[in-house]
Amino acid sequence: MAVGTLVLLRHGESVWNAENLFTGWVDVALSEKGVGEAKRGGVLLRDAGLLPDVLHTSLLRRAIHTANLALDAADRHWIPVKRDWRLNERHYGALQGKNKKQTLAEFGEEQFQLWRRSYDTPPPVIERGSEFSQDADPRYAGLGDDLPLTECLLDVVKRILPYWDEEIVPDLRAGKTVLVAAHGNSLRALVKHLDGISDTDIAGLNIPTGIPLRYDLDDDLKPTNPGGTYLDPDAAADAIKAVANQGR
Amino acid sequence: MAVGTLVLLRHGESVWNAENLFTGWVDVALSEKGVGEAKRGGVLLRDAGLLPDVLHTSLLRRAIHTANLALDAADRHWIPVKRDWRLNERHYGALQGKNKKQTLAEFGEEQFQLWRRSYDTPPPVIERGSEFSQDADPRYAGLGDDLPLTECLLDVVKRILPYWDEEIVPDLRAGKTVLVAAHGNSLRALVKHLDGISDTDIAGLNIPTGIPLRYDLDDDLKPTNPGGTYLDPDAAADAIKAVANQGR
Repeated sequence: MAVGTLVLLRHGESVWNAENLFTGWVDVALSEKGVGEAKRGGVLLRDAGLLPDVLHTSLLRRAIHTANLALDAADRHWIPVKRDWRLNERHYGALQGKNKKQTLAEFGEEQFQLWRRSYDTPPPVIERGSEFSQDADPRYAGLGDDLPLTECLLDVVKRILPYWDEEIVPDLRAGKTVLVAAHGNSLRALVKHLDGISDTDIAGLNIPTGIPLRYDLDDDLKPTNPGGTYLDPDAAADAIKAVANQGR
Repeated sequence: MAVGTLVLLRHGESVWNAENLFTGWVDVALSEKGVGEAKRGGVLLRDAGLLPDVLHTSLLRRAIHTANLALDAADRHWIPVKRDWRLNERHYGALQGKNKKQTLAEFGEEQFQLWRRSYDTPPPVIERGSEFSQDADPRYAGLGDDLPLTECLLDVVKRILPYWDEEIVPDLRAGKTVLVAAHGNSLRALVKHLDGISDTDIAGLNIPTGIPLRYDLDDDLKPTNPGGTYLDPDAAADAIKAVANQGR
C-alpha cells in the first residue's frame, strides 16, 4: 500500500497569543503577524513542491484561516477539506481568557507549569455558561457529554488518536499528501504518537507557528525522518526558543 | 421528510470582472471591491439569521474566497465544505482572457450576444495547451474527456443537475440550510431548474454578485417563493441592471 506524506502546520499568531492570554477553545482571529506567517507557510509549501491533496483542520478560526491563506499561496485552495473538533486546541478550562503573566504571578511557577505542561493534570473546569465557555456554541451542539470543560494533554491524545486512525490514516494510505492545520497542543499530541515520545519528554516539545513540518511515513506509519523536517529549519529553531519563553 | 433552505451566493467582483475580460475557468482573484461584497454578503446572512449548515463551492478561487469571507463574517467559518468542478463557471472556450468590449467590436453585436446569452451555442473551443486553457491544471486531472474546452449554458445545466441531485438535494432533505457559492452561469443554470425557466427566457436572467438569494423549497423541491428572495432586494435590483450592461 502506498503511504503518503504528512504535513503539520500550527496556526500563525492569534490576537490572544499577541496579548499573552490563554486561548484554548475561544475562537479568536489571527493577528496581522499571524496572517503573514500563514501566507509564508504556503510559500514554503509551494517552493518545496510539497502540495497537499487534502486538508484537515480544527473548528477554530485561527487554524481554518491559516490553512486558507497557506493553501491559497500554494495554489491549492481547491483541495477537499475535513474539519473536526478533535483537532481543536487543548481546552484550557477556567484559564481560558486569563493573562498568562498574571496567572503565573497569582499561582506561582510550580502550579503554572503544571497547568501548562503536565501531561495528565488539567486546569480547573470552566464554569458552564461563563463568558469563555462553549456550552452555547452551535458548532459543538452535537457533542453532548463529550464537550470538554477542561483538558490536559492526555485528554487531547485520547480524542485525537481516533481521528488520526479514522480520518487521516485512510488519506495517507491512499497515497495522499495530507495537510493538518491545527494547534500547539493538538499537534504535540500527534507528534507524541508519531515519534513515540514519552509522557515526560513531551513537556519539552514546542512546535513553532506557521512553519510546515513534514513527516515521511513508512508502511507502519512510523516516520522515516524521526522528529519530522521543518521546511525552514533555522526559523523553526528560533521560534521554538521563543515559544518556550511564553508567560515570562 | 424535512426540506431545508437553499441560499445561492454569486462571488464578488473579480480582478477580471473589473477589467471586463471573459473569465470562465481562469482562476482569478477577487478584486478589493469583491472582497467587500463577500464580507457584506456574510453580514446579510448573519443579520437575517440565515446561518448555513453546509457549504458547496466550485474549484475556483473567487467562489471559494467569497464563501470563506462571507461565512467568517457570519461566524460560520467552521461548517463542512464540499467543492466540485461541476459548480464552476461556464467554460468560455477561446474567449477566455479576451476583452469583452474588443470582442464586441471585433465580432459584432449579434455574434457577441449569441456567445454570451445563447442557450445552446458555445463559443469556439479553447486551444489545448494555450495560455488560458486548463489541460495541465492538477485540480482537473481526474476529469479526462469530461474536461470542457468550451460550454454553452445547456452544457452547464447538464453537468450541474447531477451534482444537484447527488450532493445538494441530500443535504436539503436532511433539513439543512445549504449555501452554494458559485458563479453567474452555474447559478443561472440552477435557478433555471428551480424556477422552471424556459430556454429562451433564461437569457434575460442576471444574478447580482455578493447578495445572498434565498429559496424556500417544498417537499417536491419546488420554491414556495418563486424567483427566490434577495436578502437586500434594492441592491439586487440595482446590480441586475448593471450586469445587463456588461460589455458596453
